[in-house]
Order: sequence, then structure tokens, then C-alpha cells
Amino acid sequence: MRWDQLAEDDCPVARALSVIGDRWAALILRDALRGVTRFDAFHARLGCSRAMVAKRLAELVDQGVFELRAYQDHPPRHDYVLTDRGRALGPIVMMMAQWSETWLPQRRSSPLRRRHKDCGQLFQPVLVCSECREPVEPGRVEYPDLAPSRRRATTDRQGQSA
Amino acid sequence: MRWDQLAEDDCPVARALSVIGDRWAALILRDALRGVTRFDAFHARLGCSRAMVAKRLAELVDQGVFELRAYQDHPPRHDYVLTDRGRALGPIVMMMAQWSETWLPQRRSSPLRRRHKDCGQLFQPVLVCSECREPVEPGRVEYPDLAPSRRRATTDRQGQSA
Repeated sequence: MRWDQLAEDDCPVARALSVIGDRWAALILRDALRGVTRFDAFHARLGCSRAMVAKRLAELVDQGVFELRAYQDHPPRHDYVLTDRGRALGPIVMMMAQWSETWLPQRRSSPLRRRHKDCGQLFQPVLVCSECREPVEPGRVEYPDLAPSRRRATTDRQGQSA
Repeated sequence: MRWDQLAEDDCPVARALSVIGDRWAALILRDALRGVTRFDAFHARLGCSRAMVAKRLAELVDQGVFELRAYQDHPPRHDYVLTDRGRALGPIVMMMAQWSETWLPQRRSSPLRRRHKDCGQLFQPVLVCSECREPVEPGRVEYPDLAPSRRRATTDRQGQSA
């Protein structure tokens, strides 16, 4: 599989990775979700080359994650503003943060506090089932449409057992 | 910032990206969450080189995402079994899939169906607030500990406005 095919892949996880499966792109998205909109601010936070920031921002605009909004005409300058599609990536980034706080805690820093604007309380994100509204625990999900895991492996290896 | 520093970063999102911020690693994790445990099965699904699969699997073992479990002695062979830390990455992958199904739908394939083993129903993952138990909508989160977004950018640029 080539990377430029990911965006067209049948698997929705692969399609998401075509957008945020690059670490610089994911860090830009993290900063955008925290309110950063300007090229220089993204660049200062990432600490990589300006060319890399420019490339990743342009890709994220092409993918509909950001839209450009002019804030100055001479010379032309614009903010990178998250679209609805971009803002909808927030839960993925929030679950990444929560996983690290649980499984890769960093002694020298306190966990990141989040406030839910709707209820005003500090909170943790919890993933629940849309039907029973109970938390979905690891290993408690099955995929009725997916083939048994070794079918494709076996086919690709021309009948050998995988 | 260098990639080998990500694992030590203060930001929990950056630490998570040290593990799943690589697309091959993320695709291996996706397959593991669907039940794949064997080298040849990962390799057949990914379609990249055996060397790349071996490198990524070894990194994921080092990071405590997989543990090795022998299934054959002569020659020695083992399954890659998700640890608790690895299984806990499931919600991130599930939210990636759901984002794509909403925002990058693929005409030729139906959305991936998931069944919650606890209640037996087909479901969508929903991210809710641990306190009020209501869904956390995009843009309804604030981070009281984070500095205003431009402070660091301004400092790095020696007082110029960002």
C-alpha cells in the first residue's frame, strides 16, 4: 500500500491516517484545537523547519481540515481556522492525551486539566456505547463484517497457513 | 523537537504520537485490535516490506504495546499479544474510524459495523464528559492550565508579535 492510496482506502482507520497519521500534522492539529491560528505560532511550537510547517498546513487545507481567513491585505496574511471537519478530530486528540496520562505518565508534569464548557466541570473524556450509554471497555467490541483475521494472509501466501 | 524526544515530552498528545504517530505502527495496531497476532498476517495486510513490519513490531514491543507469547519451540515462533496498555489504544482507533465515516465517507464501502459485547447491540462510539455524562461537542472544551496561545511564539521570536 502506498501512502497516497490511504485516502481512498476502504478502511476508515486508514483514511483517517491519511490526514493525521503524520506526527507534524497531528501536532499542528493539537495546537489548532487549543486556539492557535497563525503560521508563526504553529512554527514556534513545533520547532521544525518553516518549510515543513508550510507543507503540512497546505495539506491540511487541501484535506478540508483548515480554511484560510484573511486578517491583513498588505501584505496578504491569513489565519488557519479549523473547519467543522477539523474540529471533529478533537475527540481523537483528546483520547490520545488521556491514554498517555494513564499509560505513559510524566513525573515532572501534572495531567492536563480540561473543562467541559457545557457543565463547567473539570472532566475526563469517556467513550460510551451509543445504545446502552455504558463505557466501552477494551476488548468488548466485535466487528461482524470483518473476515476472520487470517483469510487475507493465507490468500496472499498462496494457500500456506499463516 | 526531535522524534526521539517525543516520548519524554510534557504534552501527553506528543507522548501518544511517539507510539502511534507512525502510520505503519497505527495500521499494525488496528489489525491487532481486530485479532491479528502473527507476523505473516500483519505483513500480508500491510503490504509493506517484512523489514518495516519487523521494525515496527519490535518498537511496539519495546513500548509495552505488545508482549511476545511463544506458540512453537522449533523453530521459535511467537504471537504478538496486546498488553493492557496496547488494548487501551482501542478508543483512539475507534474514534479515527468514526471520524472518517462521518467526514470522509467512501461511496463503495458500507460503514464498519461494531457490536458492543456488553449490551449486544450495534453501536457508535460517543465521547462523553465524565461528570455530566453528556456528549462533549467540538469546541466545548477549554484548558485552564494552558498559556495563551501566542506566548511561546512571541518569546521564540524575541518579542516580535506572532
